[in-house]
Amino acid sequence: MSDGQSTWGGRFSEPTDAFVARLNASVEFDKRLYAEDIDGSKAHATMLAEQGIISAEDAAAIHGGLEQIRQEIESGVFEWSAALEDVHMNIEHRLTALIGDAGARLHTGRSRNDQVATDLRLWLMRHIDTVLQSFDRLQGAVLELAERDGAAILPGYTHLQRAQPILFSHHLLAYFEMFERDRSRLVDCRARCAESPLGSAALAGTPFPLNRARTAQLLGFNGHMRNSLDGVADRDFAVEYTAAASLAMVHLSRLSEELVVWSSQEFAFIEIGDAFATGSSIMPQKKNPDIPELVRGKSGRVFGDLISLLTTLKSLPLAYNKDLQEDKEALFDAADTLRDCVDAIARVLPACRVNVETMRAACDSGFVTATDVADYLANKGVPFRTAHHVVGRLVGWCLQEGRPLVSLSLDEFKQFSDVFEDDILEAVTVEASVSARRSPGGTAPELVDAALREARARLETR
Amino acid sequence: MSDGQSTWGGRFSEPTDAFVARLNASVEFDKRLYAEDIDGSKAHATMLAEQGIISAEDAAAIHGGLEQIRQEIESGVFEWSAALEDVHMNIEHRLTALIGDAGARLHTGRSRNDQVATDLRLWLMRHIDTVLQSFDRLQGAVLELAERDGAAILPGYTHLQRAQPILFSHHLLAYFEMFERDRSRLVDCRARCAESPLGSAALAGTPFPLNRARTAQLLGFNGHMRNSLDGVADRDFAVEYTAAASLAMVHLSRLSEELVVWSSQEFAFIEIGDAFATGSSIMPQKKNPDIPELVRGKSGRVFGDLISLLTTLKSLPLAYNKDLQEDKEALFDAADTLRDCVDAIARVLPACRVNVETMRAACDSGFVTATDVADYLANKGVPFRTAHHVVGRLVGWCLQEGRPLVSLSLDEFKQFSDVFEDDILEAVTVEASVSARRSPGGTAPELVDAALREARARLETR
Amino acid sequence: MSDGQSTWGGRFSEPTDAFVARLNASVEFDKRLYAEDIDGSKAHATMLAEQGIISAEDAAAIHGGLEQIRQEIESGVFEWSAALEDVHMNIEHRLTALIGDAGARLHTGRSRNDQVATDLRLWLMRHIDTVLQSFDRLQGAVLELAERDGAAILPGYTHLQRAQPILFSHHLLAYFEMFERDRSRLVDCRARCAESPLGSAALAGTPFPLNRARTAQLLGFNGHMRNSLDGVADRDFAVEYTAAASLAMVHLSRLSEELVVWSSQEFAFIEIGDAFATGSSIMPQKKNPDIPELVRGKSGRVFGDLISLLTTLKSLPLAYNKDLQEDKEALFDAADTLRDCVDAIARVLPACRVNVETMRAACDSGFVTATDVADYLANKGVPFRTAHHVVGRLVGWCLQEGRPLVSLSLDEFKQFSDVFEDDILEAVTVEASVSARRSPGGTAPELVDAALREARARLETR
Amino acid sequence: MSDGQSTWGGRFSEPTDAFVARLNASVEFDKRLYAEDIDGSKAHATMLAEQGIISAEDAAAIHGGLEQIRQEIESGVFEWSAALEDVHMNIEHRLTALIGDAGARLHTGRSRNDQVATDLRLWLMRHIDTVLQSFDRLQGAVLELAERDGAAILPGYTHLQRAQPILFSHHLLAYFEMFERDRSRLVDCRARCAESPLGSAALAGTPFPLNRARTAQLLGFNGHMRNSLDGVADRDFAVEYTAAASLAMVHLSRLSEELVVWSSQEFAFIEIGDAFATGSSIMPQKKNPDIPELVRGKSGRVFGDLISLLTTLKSLPLAYNKDLQEDKEALFDAADTLRDCVDAIARVLPACRVNVETMRAACDSGFVTATDVADYLANKGVPFRTAHHVVGRLVGWCLQEGRPLVSLSLDEFKQFSDVFEDDILEAVTVEASVSARRSPGGTAPELVDAALREARARLETR
Repeated sequence: MSDGQSTWGGRFSEPTDAFVARLNASVEFDKRLYAEDIDGSKAHATMLAEQGIISAEDAAAIHGGLEQIRQEIESGVFEWSAALEDVHMNIEHRLTALIGDAGARLHTGRSRNDQVATDLRLWLMRHIDTVLQSFDRLQGAVLELAERDGAAILPGYTHLQRAQPILFSHHLLAYFEMFERDRSRLVDCRARCAESPLGSAALAGTPFPLNRARTAQLLGFNGHMRNSLDGVADRDFAVEYTAAASLAMVHLSRLSEELVVWSSQEFAFIEIGDAFATGSSIMPQKKNPDIPELVRGKSGRVFGDLISLLTTLKSLPLAYNKDLQEDKEALFDAADTLRDCVDAIARVLPACRVNVETMRAACDSGFVTATDVADYLANKGVPFRTAHHVVGRLVGWCLQEGRPLVSLSLDEFKQFSDVFEDDILEAVTVEASVSARRSPGGTAPELVDAALREARARLETR
Repeated sequence: MSDGQSTWGGRFSEPTDAFVARLNASVEFDKRLYAEDIDGSKAHATMLAEQGIISAEDAAAIHGGLEQIRQEIESGVFEWSAALEDVHMNIEHRLTALIGDAGARLHTGRSRNDQVATDLRLWLMRHIDTVLQSFDRLQGAVLELAERDGAAILPGYTHLQRAQPILFSHHLLAYFEMFERDRSRLVDCRARCAESPLGSAALAGTPFPLNRARTAQLLGFNGHMRNSLDGVADRDFAVEYTAAASLAMVHLSRLSEELVVWSSQEFAFIEIGDAFATGSSIMPQKKNPDIPELVRGKSGRVFGDLISLLTTLKSLPLAYNKDLQEDKEALFDAADTLRDCVDAIARVLPACRVNVETMRAACDSGFVTATDVADYLANKGVPFRTAHHVVGRLVGWCLQEGRPLVSLSLDEFKQFSDVFEDDILEAVTVEASVSARRSPGGTAPELVDAALREARARLETR
Repeated sequence: MSDGQSTWGGRFSEPTDAFVARLNASVEFDKRLYAEDIDGSKAHATMLAEQGIISAEDAAAIHGGLEQIRQEIESGVFEWSAALEDVHMNIEHRLTALIGDAGARLHTGRSRNDQVATDLRLWLMRHIDTVLQSFDRLQGAVLELAERDGAAILPGYTHLQRAQPILFSHHLLAYFEMFERDRSRLVDCRARCAESPLGSAALAGTPFPLNRARTAQLLGFNGHMRNSLDGVADRDFAVEYTAAASLAMVHLSRLSEELVVWSSQEFAFIEIGDAFATGSSIMPQKKNPDIPELVRGKSGRVFGDLISLLTTLKSLPLAYNKDLQEDKEALFDAADTLRDCVDAIARVLPACRVNVETMRAACDSGFVTATDVADYLANKGVPFRTAHHVVGRLVGWCLQEGRPLVSLSLDEFKQFSDVFEDDILEAVTVEASVSARRSPGGTAPELVDAALREARARLETR
Repeated sequence: MSDGQSTWGGRFSEPTDAFVARLNASVEFDKRLYAEDIDGSKAHATMLAEQGIISAEDAAAIHGGLEQIRQEIESGVFEWSAALEDVHMNIEHRLTALIGDAGARLHTGRSRNDQVATDLRLWLMRHIDTVLQSFDRLQGAVLELAERDGAAILPGYTHLQRAQPILFSHHLLAYFEMFERDRSRLVDCRARCAESPLGSAALAGTPFPLNRARTAQLLGFNGHMRNSLDGVADRDFAVEYTAAASLAMVHLSRLSEELVVWSSQEFAFIEIGDAFATGSSIMPQKKNPDIPELVRGKSGRVFGDLISLLTTLKSLPLAYNKDLQEDKEALFDAADTLRDCVDAIARVLPACRVNVETMRAACDSGFVTATDVADYLANKGVPFRTAHHVVGRLVGWCLQEGRPLVSLSLDEFKQFSDVFEDDILEAVTVEASVSARRSPGGTAPELVDAALREARARLETR
């Protein structure tokens, strides 16, 4: 197309060629795959030589050339060219410039279609290895805080209303478990990702006698994919990762919301460390919990990446389509965001000051041990629904009289049920309430202590 | 609130009480959990009796009453009441009406918070068991078609442009592999789902000496969750399922798109069975591929359910919040849709008529074996990128002359490279091209045969 | 397809025919369009007669038959049949049964493709008219509360940290404005929706001399769509509505979040009316803000509907595709949810008890008027950034001394800047702070009063 | 926080300060707002001087300093600093360095909260102005192609099955109408965006006697927002834009899908211009429609941005929260993507070669004029549903005999109905079919010609 032929061409801000080149090119973002591209090419060359498809000399030249390119890239002297479209052509072009014909033989039995799929899977496997370490730090930070201030008692909430007293460490351990599942989803995702597409060629395989198991093994894959079309056409590993990341962001957003709410002057349960908050030059009382807010906000970003990937893949016929070029930016963005957010909260938690007294005071007002009175009665044989009714009337009377539960005498208790005995006066305290919840997984201190030790052991024997 | 107090109240179409009751109530959709609710209550009662918390007689009465309720529900005589809000209260209310005090003792050491989490997890585990069978049927249908018409050769496409010839069975096996991964994601999801929250009580555990491992075992869970807050507050299993379902819908939408495209008069590769298409009373040539179109369209529905669940959970503080009531409809919708769509395509595939000749004819025009010529040269030592250039010129000449590749004489080939020998005349045929792609996972008939047998074995030894 | 031919057929739970019929049929959900379908058919018949395409007698018979069908549907005696697929065929089939040949002539110059597009647009126009009334009630409820308790002063928050004192009515008016924009988006959406597709026929128009302007006018459209393919192929009006509904849900979720936070014992700014909260039989202090929580949770539902519709439409070639059958449930769900949530908050607001003293007390602690001190200095010529530094040091000193700003003497102020004069002692009070913010749109009482009156006027002259 | 205090700190890859600074800083992406930030500050300074809040000399110094900064930025010499967090502080810091105290006075009566809201709205207004020009070009390109090759007749499709013959120009005009609505949505969005938040200050207004109408006017807003909290807290304009962009991407993805399908060898209706396709060095017959594929793929990206924004805003309490920092990247990405895709398709269309004969040939096979036979009968008084049955039998017979409709003699027609007369032989041709569809909006050539002229006039009188 000559712009001159079009009525409108003259009014565009960029000439067509430049525009198309920019839109088509992916090197701007896929150059991030350079290490995987080089490693993949080295493994391919090694295998080609072992299979007698290229000579050992060619393979050695390819290895040498690629390592030089790696150095050029890492030292910042490599010249990336958008005209060469993508990371693969940039590297191959430079390789051929460096070593000549041997470089041109590297692409034997390979296509950009399987090459890019290999690079991206490899990148994701390596990223997951890194982010798993971030999760270890995050879970370590949860435990560190739980071990440090875990004896603190605060109201457990439902509907953001005070419900029953719990240990702060028990609350934190709930997040430890969520992150443990997030971690396991990433481990499962990595396993499904770790099948090598290399050797699928353009879509149908190749006549060259490749040893796909060998390249898979050299690159750290668990094996190779069974079907060549599947190898070049699917990106489900990227979607699965982003879905797992979205769930992890849900968990991080919930913890972040609690950090924000707990930092309000009204709750004042914690104080975010100075490094993770911003002040205001005119309102020194203000300590904005910026980092938790950002993490909360970034959950939307990862959900967006997920929808972007799902939509892009929807209804695409086999095998490769150019639409797939849109897979990388969303995946990279989700991966960077998840890692940053996990690292951020891992840093924020140990730097929190916990206001133990404020938490404890929030348990005293109100009737957070009302359930314990009902449990007390049920334990003595009163049908549970009946016990509820008794306590309902009792608390109604307390509200009317402005009396907290702990202030009641045995006689006053007995006015509501004959079943009450002396031990109700102890049972109704916050400490007794917490200690009583000894069912497995409950908040009783000795259970929580054991849970902390068990969690620590899980983390340290990883 | 009395509507009379509000300026606007009089203009609403429903009185406040009815409106609030309707909005609050979940029984309309959660009654679907009745079997899990009954099973959960029976297990809880059994355990309570074993632990000496209730009497054996009470447990027996509870079991009897619950089985009667199950029968009432399944025979349609049970009277569901929106005033009783949800499936749990409807059943408990009826139980107490049937067996009195023993019914009121059932709720000892339990809360609706852990009850609903248990029901929903149990429901999802059972659903996954069912949908895995649907996947078996779907994969069986893929194999059935591949075994029946698998020798057919069609062009493999990239960018919806003819690229290289492949076996139809090879193309189908790509989907077998995608569905295999979809299946494995569901298996992983089920394992994470199969941790029992029962015994978490409202949020903090309970003073009653529950045996959570026992109820978990009775209900088919793998064990119980470690933390009581986590048990009642998280719904990540529902999101994980819906994400896995979304990915499966992506794969189904891709296959559906191909069925639609292949059914067009222009491609005419297949003909959808009459049962899965609609005609038009005035255009009998029209056979609309309704079922594949619907499946393709329904992918959006499941993506929507996924976003709905993620959004609902975002930023919710621990533990239970009423927002969680929104978890069920999205999960049920995703589950129903996935199962319907898997079943639909499992029925559609074997009922397709494959136009083997049309597929084969599409390979003849064009230059789908051009890569084979380049591979031929590379195989004889020409650097691959050089080989590409030779073939480029060769095909350019063919286009100019209006000659297909298979029509060229050896002399004509030799005008482009001395490396060509007699065997090029064979190498350039469609059959040779397919046969040559013998790299693992490639489309060569003997490899595809082995892949079919291996896939069949995987399926049948499940 | 005979199931007997398939290896797997015998294991499906439903026979193929029943399964396909169920999946294909839409009558279960599109029967909701019966009124629009009848109105559309009557208008079409009227026009056909006016154009001389059918006789006046036929038109009269059609009108009579359709009105009888309307009565049958509304009285519950109409027998819907899934075998007849959709609302259109159910009604047409009954019509022909009632009036014979004239019924068969109704479909002249029409297709189900333009018929369903007409029905759905008409339904949405009517729904928007209804939901606009709901918005009026909601905005009325905002004003009612603002007029009733609007003099209350609470801290305005940023980052959920107390920032500057504002009038409660000023806070509420922010939502009035958001809802005003939500409303205007719906009005714009309605205008784009109100173009009639009737007369587009299957996709290409029809040879019958239709008067499309006439049917458009009879049905309350603003005119007819210009292009027949566009008329049957697009559903952008449904997406636009759902996007507008999603934004309204964002606003409702923000207000709901505030209602939940304000209802916590820690904030205790408001108390939700009993009708909109649930208690707990054992914890009478608990008043769970169920309705705001539900509304907050339901935002995810509408976002999901939006993604569902966008995904379904993505990449569909023209004109009608069966995928479009998926347009209705998502649209209906979004519409029902929006209306319910708008109505719910419209009821919740006037039933809130506002704790004016607690709000006011929250302004006294802390330094919510620190900005006023800086403004005071800037007003007297100190560069603003310099003024900030002065106040920073001043507040730091207050924190150290445990002194609120209002307790400082003029001498103490003067230790930080000579610019302070007598009037600082007044300027630093909460009331002065609020009164001072007289820039347009600010929280000064006289401005807020005027804004309330202006808002009331807008509402009442609608 | 000192990392030394944390068990885990030592293992992070970045020290905390650097990490937090990087996560918190927005200058990396918000520096894109520099022009709007400068313009907003100039307008603010002008107004401050007019109101006597700062001196005319200060205002002049501010204007001069800001223009110098603009030049520094545009010439690339400005040093952006992440330590200064955002575009606002970077510019203000430099301004104060350049002009001293006057720079420090610029921030009087303003806060970063209203400043960033102003910048972003202004940026979006300007972007919309630009993208509307892109839409004009796109619609112009649609018309150009329709005018050039519009007489071509191709089958109209439903369900991707040939349905009825239509003019190619008629098909294209359907997209013209869709883009017209996309355009009008952007115009509506711009109007709602064009309310100035400047003067809202931090959240509550300011004591300085600002003239908000004046700054609004200076900046090209239609007026100022009514409520200061609303001004700093809402981002609905960004969501509304992204929703409108998503819908436009739906339309572009549909057209792109058609371009891809039409470019397949099987359809071969069009050939994409070389500049917008990529070849393959070994398969010269391959002309991959890269640009339409990319545009199709990028629809997911914009849907993702939409979900990202909606999620971020969900449940945020008033007024400003740090989460809002996440508004910019999604909005910028959606805006860039939409503009690129509109421009891309505007370039692609006029560069398409249309294979008029192939399109026409696709009409000859099959029974695309079967509806015309039914219409013929209905037109002569046969009830429409009866006419359908007659044609059904007739076409069934043709299929059996292998006869196209146009080959039938009058006698043969009469065997199916006596109503047929001589003129049926003409009515059954493709040309007659197209010409007959003269209902408004139909595909008859004279109607399409008029529609083209009307569309051209709309475009040129804009």
